Amino acid sequence: MKPKNPNYREKVTAIFSRGRFINDLGIEVADMGPGWCETKMAVREHILQQDGYVHAGVLASMADHTAGGATGTLVAEEEIVLTVEFKINFLRPAVGDALRCRAKVLKGGRTLIVAESEVFISSAGHEKMAAKAMVTLTAVKGSAS
Amino acid sequence: MKPKNPNYREKVTAIFSRGRFINDLGIEVADMGPGWCETKMAVREHILQQDGYVHAGVLASMADHTAGGATGTLVAEEEIVLTVEFKINFLRPAVGDALRCRAKVLKGGRTLIVAESEVFISSAGHEKMAAKAMVTLTAVKGSAS
Amino acid sequence: MKPKNPNYREKVTAIFSRGRFINDLGIEVADMGPGWCETKMAVREHILQQDGYVHAGVLASMADHTAGGATGTLVAEEEIVLTVEFKINFLRPAVGDALRCRAKVLKGGRTLIVAESEVFISSAGHEKMAAKAMVTLTAVKGSAS
Amino acid sequence: MKPKNPNYREKVTAIFSRGRFINDLGIEVADMGPGWCETKMAVREHILQQDGYVHAGVLASMADHTAGGATGTLVAEEEIVLTVEFKINFLRPAVGDALRCRAKVLKGGRTLIVAESEVFISSAGHEKMAAKAMVTLTAVKGSAS
Repeated sequence: MKPKNPNYREKVTAIFSRGRFINDLGIEVADMGPGWCETKMAVREHILQQDGYVHAGVLASMADHTAGGATGTLVAEEEIVLTVEFKINFLRPAVGDALRCRAKVLKGGRTLIVAESEVFISSAGHEKMAAKAMVTLTAVKGSAS
Repeated sequence: MKPKNPNYREKVTAIFSRGRFINDLGIEVADMGPGWCETKMAVREHILQQDGYVHAGVLASMADHTAGGATGTLVAEEEIVLTVEFKINFLRPAVGDALRCRAKVLKGGRTLIVAESEVFISSAGHEKMAAKAMVTLTAVKGSAS
Repeated sequence: MKPKNPNYREKVTAIFSRGRFINDLGIEVADMGPGWCETKMAVREHILQQDGYVHAGVLASMADHTAGGATGTLVAEEEIVLTVEFKINFLRPAVGDALRCRAKVLKGGRTLIVAESEVFISSAGHEKMAAKAMVTLTAVKGSAS
Repeated sequence: MKPKNPNYREKVTAIFSRGRFINDLGIEVADMGPGWCETKMAVREHILQQDGYVHAGVLASMADHTAGGATGTLVAEEEIVLTVEFKINFLRPAVGDALRCRAKVLKGGRTLIVAESEVFISSAGHEKMAAKAMVTLTAVKGSAS
């Protein structure tokens, strides 16, 4: 997969640093390359639901945003990435210390991109897949500012 | 649809008040009844993504949690509700002042429940559907404390 | 919702009559209007799976194709409708005499359309929802011939 | 992943041979092992839609049934496998000679199993991914006869 934008790292970094929601959650980019992105996040009280598990919405947000990051590595500089839809399966109750998400683009396209995201939770150094998502995204002309 | 728990209002209210994530987002119960739940939320900067729209993950969290609320009206007192999976379509970029979500149970069951959630965004008093989700949930024995 | 093609009935009728797969299954249009379509189908042995239920793939095919019919009522004459993705929940094992599917467009658009389909099964005159799907479609320029 | 049933090959073979729908489509098991299943199918006119592509419902049926086959390798002899829900993305219009589907179980469980299926289409010996699905299934006590 070929990036249309040679400065895709800056673009994707901005996707993670500019929005309050992702910043407040504490999701950070760990690494990226053409067609993929990896993120990480500490498990702290502010992302838990009522029974002490990481909230399904947090796992979904991480899966969605990381898929957006993977897509962001491929699109043109003047394009913004929007999520069309996604589906996510929760594989086990998410209890642990840290989350890691790996997203990769399955199929690029002029307007529609399909990516998948795997979210892992680690507890005492042992990592398990907590959720997996399929995400459909679109790239539209828009201000990157 | 018949609630197994006559005190379902207390139970569902706790689902919304006890977890930090939903509290921090500012999602509140507006109303509920057997098999349905409605929630609301103000649009403020902390729920936005990098281009000024409400983050897809926030809409997904609201859809998921409200489906959990709708399901919570039906389950037994000693059961907790977990999301098995969901799928959400984003119908338009979400720009506005306030969000409202209405979830209803499509099909109850001993272990699997299917619900759907519609999320509306209002701007200057005019409301449009921003997202729609289908959610599969399960009720498992667990502490309600 | 406004049809771009005044002859949408002919177009949608052709969507059901021209492909072998839908014909062999026995899915027929019952009625349609701008943004919606209804279909029907008899339950016979050729649509069953190994345990005597209607195969999930048949319910999915009916939901998908009827969503395509609903979308076909809105697109231009020279456009063809393709499914981008769908998600379907099976609400109960499908046992009965006849199937009916009602699809409606939730959100139209220049390139992306979101529809939902409900599939009902009837047994001795009593009808229940067997499955519900959300379908994302696209309209592309193509020969309708 | 450990099969509960040492004769899982017979069981899964029957899942493919006993139902009319899958037989009529021409879907055959190519190979299987604990937690996975692979199937194949020739592209012939009876599986096409109105514009000459393989019908989305056929790709979905293959993805669903092969996920059922992968799950069937793990369940007990007296259990039958039912699909709870699935989601499928269509990555390109499916034109070619033959289809191949590979399904694997992502997460087994006592009552809920999550699998994913990739469907490939080949044309003149060149194979591409045409669709990818995530499938949630359940195993219930039932007659295997």
